[in-house]
Amino acid sequence: MIYMDNAATSWPKPNIVYDTVSQAMKEYGANPGRSSHKMAVKAAQALITTRESLCRLFNTPNPFSMVFTFNTTDSLNLAIKGLLKKRDHVITTSMEHNSVVRPLMHLARAGIDVTIVPTDSTGIIDPVEIEKAIKGNTKLIVTTHASNVTGTVMPIEKVGKIAKQYGVLYLVDAAQTAGLIPLDLSKLEIDLLAMPGHKGLLGPQGTGVLFIREGTSLNQIREGGTGSQSESIYQPGFLPDRYESGTMNTPGIAGMGAGIEYILSRDQEKSFSRIQGMEEMFIDALNSIKGVKVYGPKSIQHRAGIISINIGDKDSREIVNILNNEYDIAARGSLHCAPLAHETIGTKDQGTVRFSPGVFSTREEIRICVKAIEDIIHRIKTRSI
Amino acid sequence: MIYMDNAATSWPKPNIVYDTVSQAMKEYGANPGRSSHKMAVKAAQALITTRESLCRLFNTPNPFSMVFTFNTTDSLNLAIKGLLKKRDHVITTSMEHNSVVRPLMHLARAGIDVTIVPTDSTGIIDPVEIEKAIKGNTKLIVTTHASNVTGTVMPIEKVGKIAKQYGVLYLVDAAQTAGLIPLDLSKLEIDLLAMPGHKGLLGPQGTGVLFIREGTSLNQIREGGTGSQSESIYQPGFLPDRYESGTMNTPGIAGMGAGIEYILSRDQEKSFSRIQGMEEMFIDALNSIKGVKVYGPKSIQHRAGIISINIGDKDSREIVNILNNEYDIAARGSLHCAPLAHETIGTKDQGTVRFSPGVFSTREEIRICVKAIEDIIHRIKTRSI
Repeated sequence: MIYMDNAATSWPKPNIVYDTVSQAMKEYGANPGRSSHKMAVKAAQALITTRESLCRLFNTPNPFSMVFTFNTTDSLNLAIKGLLKKRDHVITTSMEHNSVVRPLMHLARAGIDVTIVPTDSTGIIDPVEIEKAIKGNTKLIVTTHASNVTGTVMPIEKVGKIAKQYGVLYLVDAAQTAGLIPLDLSKLEIDLLAMPGHKGLLGPQGTGVLFIREGTSLNQIREGGTGSQSESIYQPGFLPDRYESGTMNTPGIAGMGAGIEYILSRDQEKSFSRIQGMEEMFIDALNSIKGVKVYGPKSIQHRAGIISINIGDKDSREIVNILNNEYDIAARGSLHCAPLAHETIGTKDQGTVRFSPGVFSTREEIRICVKAIEDIIHRIKTRSI
Repeated sequence: MIYMDNAATSWPKPNIVYDTVSQAMKEYGANPGRSSHKMAVKAAQALITTRESLCRLFNTPNPFSMVFTFNTTDSLNLAIKGLLKKRDHVITTSMEHNSVVRPLMHLARAGIDVTIVPTDSTGIIDPVEIEKAIKGNTKLIVTTHASNVTGTVMPIEKVGKIAKQYGVLYLVDAAQTAGLIPLDLSKLEIDLLAMPGHKGLLGPQGTGVLFIREGTSLNQIREGGTGSQSESIYQPGFLPDRYESGTMNTPGIAGMGAGIEYILSRDQEKSFSRIQGMEEMFIDALNSIKGVKVYGPKSIQHRAGIISINIGDKDSREIVNILNNEYDIAARGSLHCAPLAHETIGTKDQGTVRFSPGVFSTREEIRICVKAIEDIIHRIKTRSI
C-alpha cells in the first residue's frame, strides 16, 4: 500500500518508536509519579525525557511548560476553554479545523464573541485583517499553522507580533506542522501551541501536547489525581500537574519521545525540504493533467506537504475509494473535518482528495500516484468508470 | 521484582495485549473513521470490536453506549461535568478518589451543592445514609465501586436501587473493579460507569471508558473533529461521536480489547476468587504479626484485592522505599490521591503501604511480601533500620 494519509496519522513510524512503546509496556508499565518503586520511577523518567526532547525540538527551556494531553483536540479544548470567559472576544480564521471551530461555536452559544476572519480562496490570510478585528475585549487569537485541507501555511510570525503588540494571547494549532516545519519558541510570539504526538512528531496515537508559555494564566479543564498534593481535595496550581490528571499514556509518551529523538537526530530543515520537493513534483505533474484542480497556494513556500485535489466534478469520496480499491493508494476524501475551510476554497459539497506524503514517502510513490490519477481520468473519459 | 501495584496499573499484561498494540501500530496505524482506505477501515474495526467486547463483559447490548476516553479521570470529568449544572445537588462518599472529589470541589466553587456522606472507619457505607441525603434538587449520586485505599466494596446494587427510586442518576467509579469483579449492567441500576483500560481490563495506559446508558442526557466536555457530520461546525449529538473528538488511541483501544478478550476467555468469577484467596491469605498472615495494622473491612466479601497496612507509626513512604530497595517489592505508599479516604480511616499523615496483587500474582509472591514485612518489623525492633 502507498500511504498518503500522513496528515491524519503518520505511518509508518521509525522502528525505535514501536520498540520504545513495547519496552515501556513490558519493562516499566507502571504509573509515573505515583510511587517510588523502580518501575514507577522509570515511567516518570520517560515522561521527563520526552518533555526535555520537546524543549530541544522547539527551543524552549522549561520542560514543565510541555503539558501532555491525549490528542490535539484535547490540547485545543484545554487552551480555548481554559482561557475564554463570557464576553471575551476571540479571533480565528476561515481555514480552521473543527477542533478549533467546534469548541469556539460551543462557547459562542455561551456568550463568547467569535470573529472568523476570511482568507483568500487558497487559504492565505492577510495579518492586517486579523489586526483590524482586534477589539477592546479580544483575549485570544487562534490560527492553524497549516491548513489540514490545503496545507496553506499561516504567517504565524506576523500574527504573533500583532498579538503581542495588542496584549492578546496567541494560540497556534500545529496539528499539521509540529515535527515537520521547524518552530522556534524562543523567537515566535506564541503563548500556546497545540500539537499531536501521532503526526509529525512520529509518535503513537493517544498522545498530544500543549505548550503553555510560563506566565500564561489558564484554567484546567479536568481535575483528578495528580500524584502531587495528595492531601488536598483541590487541583494543584502548578505546571504541569494542574493540567495532567489521572494516569498518563506512558508508553505513548515514551514512543512520542523516541519519535522526537528520531527527528532531532536528522536535519529537520532538510527533512521538510525533502517533503516539499515531493510536493512540488506532485503538483507540477498534476498541473499538467487536464481535469485536475489543485487547491491551495501556488507557491511552495506557502505550503506544508498537503496536496488536495479534485478530478472534474467527481465526488472526492468516490475517487478515494477507487484509489484504495484499484491502486492500493491510501488517500483521504470528503470534508476533512473542516467545513469552513471547504467553504473558503469552494469544495463544501465535493470535498477534496487529499494526499499527504510523510518522511518515509518516496518520489517513486508520488509517480505512482500521478499515474493512478492519469489513469482514472482516462477511464472517466472513456466511461470505463 | 514482585509487582504489587496493580491498583495503579496492572502489570504484566497478557502477551496478546502487547502483540495487539504492536500490530495496531504497524499494520493499521491510521485514523479510525476518517477515511475509507484499508488501514483506516481496519482501525475503525478495532474500535468497534473493543466496544463489542466491552458489551459482552458488562452484559449490555449497545456498543455505542461504550464511549472511549483517555483514563478514568477523563471519564469521571465527562460524567460529572456533563451532568451537573449550577444549583444541582450531588451526593458522594468519604471514600472517593480525587478523580471524583477534585471535579466536585471545582464545581462546588461554581455553585453546585455537594454532600459527602461519611462511611465507617473501614470504608463501609450505609445506603440508608445516602437515601437520607437526597433532596429535591439531587441530580446525581457518585460512588466508587471499591476504594483504591482499602479495597472496600460499596453496595452499588442497593445504592442503584435508591437512585432509581428517587429518579436520581447514578455514576459508579469502577477504577478498581472493572474487569476484576463481574458487573452486570442489565441488572444494575447504573446510569454511568467510569473505568480505566489499564487496570482490571488489562489494556495499556492512555485508555478509559465511560458507559453511558441510552437515554442519559449528558453534555460533552470536548468538541472537535469526529469524522462525522463534517459539514457542520457544531458537535454531533449522537453516541459515541458526541463524546469522542479528535484521533482516538487506536493501538491502546485495540490492546484493551485484547485484554478484555483474555478476561472473557477465562471464568471471571474464578479469577477474582483467586485474587481474593491471595488477599485472605495475606491478611490472615498480617493479622498475626504484631505491629501491623490492616485497614478496611474484616470480611473478605467486602474487599476487592487491595491490602493497605501500616507498620507501627512508620511513614508509609519509608516502608515502600525499603520494600523497593531491599526486597525488590513494588508497593505504593503515601496518600493514594484520596485524602478524604485517608481522613476516614485515620491515615491522613501516615498514608498507607498498599499492596495490590493482580491476575498474574502468585501465593508465593504473597509469602515473600509477608516475610519482608516480618523482617522489616524485626529490623525496626532491633533498630537496624
